Amino acid sequence: MPASKKIQASIKRSSWIRKMFEEGDARRKKFGAENIFDFSLGNPNLEPPEKFKQIIKDLANNSDTGSHAYMPNAGFVETRQAVADYLKKNNDHRPFSPNDIVMTVGAGGALNVVLKTILNPGEEVIIPSPYFVEYNFYLDNHQGIPVIINTEPDFSLDLNAIEEAVTEKTRAVLINSPNNPTGKVYTEDVINELGRLLVDCSRKFNRTIYLISDEPYRKIVYDGINVPSIFNAYNESFIVTSFSKDLSLPGERIGYAAVNPDISDKEIISSGMVLCNRILGYVNAPAFMQRAVSALLEESVDIEVYRNKRDLLCDGLAACGYEFIKPQGAFYLFPKTPIEDDAAFTSALQEENILTVPGSGFGGPGYIRIAYCVDDRTIEKALPLFEKVIKKYI
Amino acid sequence: MPASKKIQASIKRSSWIRKMFEEGDARRKKFGAENIFDFSLGNPNLEPPEKFKQIIKDLANNSDTGSHAYMPNAGFVETRQAVADYLKKNNDHRPFSPNDIVMTVGAGGALNVVLKTILNPGEEVIIPSPYFVEYNFYLDNHQGIPVIINTEPDFSLDLNAIEEAVTEKTRAVLINSPNNPTGKVYTEDVINELGRLLVDCSRKFNRTIYLISDEPYRKIVYDGINVPSIFNAYNESFIVTSFSKDLSLPGERIGYAAVNPDISDKEIISSGMVLCNRILGYVNAPAFMQRAVSALLEESVDIEVYRNKRDLLCDGLAACGYEFIKPQGAFYLFPKTPIEDDAAFTSALQEENILTVPGSGFGGPGYIRIAYCVDDRTIEKALPLFEKVIKKYI
Repeated sequence: MPASKKIQASIKRSSWIRKMFEEGDARRKKFGAENIFDFSLGNPNLEPPEKFKQIIKDLANNSDTGSHAYMPNAGFVETRQAVADYLKKNNDHRPFSPNDIVMTVGAGGALNVVLKTILNPGEEVIIPSPYFVEYNFYLDNHQGIPVIINTEPDFSLDLNAIEEAVTEKTRAVLINSPNNPTGKVYTEDVINELGRLLVDCSRKFNRTIYLISDEPYRKIVYDGINVPSIFNAYNESFIVTSFSKDLSLPGERIGYAAVNPDISDKEIISSGMVLCNRILGYVNAPAFMQRAVSALLEESVDIEVYRNKRDLLCDGLAACGYEFIKPQGAFYLFPKTPIEDDAAFTSALQEENILTVPGSGFGGPGYIRIAYCVDDRTIEKALPLFEKVIKKYI
Repeated sequence: MPASKKIQASIKRSSWIRKMFEEGDARRKKFGAENIFDFSLGNPNLEPPEKFKQIIKDLANNSDTGSHAYMPNAGFVETRQAVADYLKKNNDHRPFSPNDIVMTVGAGGALNVVLKTILNPGEEVIIPSPYFVEYNFYLDNHQGIPVIINTEPDFSLDLNAIEEAVTEKTRAVLINSPNNPTGKVYTEDVINELGRLLVDCSRKFNRTIYLISDEPYRKIVYDGINVPSIFNAYNESFIVTSFSKDLSLPGERIGYAAVNPDISDKEIISSGMVLCNRILGYVNAPAFMQRAVSALLEESVDIEVYRNKRDLLCDGLAACGYEFIKPQGAFYLFPKTPIEDDAAFTSALQEENILTVPGSGFGGPGYIRIAYCVDDRTIEKALPLFEKVIKKYI
């Protein structure tokens, strides 16, 4: 047996996704890349902001001594101070300090750091579905058990479902707002209620149940909506995030974990996170990008461009009969499929050279995920084909 | 219980190391940083080569579209091709292809990727000691069990000890040459014998026993010595490495794992490694640095500078009675302590503002590790103090 049993099984399980990508690649070769409408990946099509480009030029031209060397495992103190200041300003002036921040290898790194810090083997993490299924792997890395629960029909949190799912093994609730794959943003009321619920549940089971909020899409919201702070709703909380989406830097692997300044046993939690960043093999977040993002905390790509894409896609799909909840953030649309079998509908779209991902891949069968972080032209040219396909079924 | 039991215990265990660092910091404040002789960290004091600085300027000034975006989880194909070409040239023309390479978040990332790919829970990895104890954490991340064995008095491999340690649970042997903390480089004869031994042991136990070689110090060798290729000695093998030491980029977290082109079940192993790079939360190696190192595979800092530091330190310490095996590579010296209690001797050195690490921290009690990747001036000023301390004991 060459690879571990678990990895062999994972390779096998993920083979249909690979098959899908291979099919996409084969179509690219056959029909030309410009004739393939690829909505399958959350790889932002916008370039990083001009200010980012200027800053990396400055950094490259003025390389300080030791700037590529090891720094504390939590990251450069200047970068953590900048993040703390930013959070303070944007989270009702909670007293963040550099010690509340660990710079990480993206949000994926941040989430693994938090999970490893808090999880004992066999402990459960409640995740509202549809969800980013990579979470299953992240939990399994630390022998945690995902407990997947439903959301409301409009994808908002079902607090009763959360309450019912809590057991004496629950260690955390993991939310993702703005959400991948639905684009849902949870309201301040719901987040506050969730905070109160977790206070009650922690008391009931006499153990701390943490709230972890994965928020790389926080700045990508539309129509004047605001993403409420979980820190104000619940003390026993973490956020994990990255600059991958709002600065279009997913390949650079730069993000952070922030711990609530009012969390219990803060010293142990913070030390644990720094230790975990080290022993998971990350060691620290990439130095050059840490220095770059320090000066970019208030920046983002032009969100209006994504809003325009959302409207273009939503208007076009609504007009030809697709049903969906209009997303309030991120760059994903999660429409219902006209037939139960979302994989079959994905295949039907693929026949027209439209690449999407079945909702089943996000714990949401009967839907597809359309990532609209693509050229407007791709959306415009794909719309008649989306119409052609759905007309076969309705 | 705020953090997981394991992490709480690890924090506690590592508290003496932290105490040591805190003591060092306190001394820096009290006596001034210039009067503290810090030999405790493997943080290279040489700046990256000029060519590196030029290349990051070029990259920053000519940012191609999509250059900060996601690429395949294994890394840019151009970078992997460059690494494959480099390995082909430097490993007796074995037929490396980009599919044999996974770009990683440093050597720590690479080792975790390989371990997660191959390890089932409870399987054993044999590690010759003294060794980089971070390996214990890396194994534990994947529920592997370290089996620590002795080396010869000159720190070369004890093949009998390896043979005796192999059981039906052995999954791999993990070596590190040039070695941290001893500076030992294993000879070609020993590596070839190890290869033959592992063929025999794999046959005996009817399972593949892998050889993993951690080689970030490969280019940092002295006196015309050559680090032999494990790929030529044994087919079932991996190397894990980084550009942290030879290009002085430890903060940038850029390295790679390479799999032997002739490994069995290569397709599964390679797919497993790419999957593990993704699901461990690394996702991919930092994009900017991947592009930088593509053109720097033949480069390194000036190794003669380190050789000079080694000679300065070795000559000085030998003259006043320290006993050690002269290192052939890396930038560490591992002398015997004149008393059994290496922690006590480390404390005695600390009293003179010399910071080192007890050998016990590397599975080698009765020794200390001196990291000589520091200014020549630091070595020169510390030598009389090293003498003063040892004179108390001999």
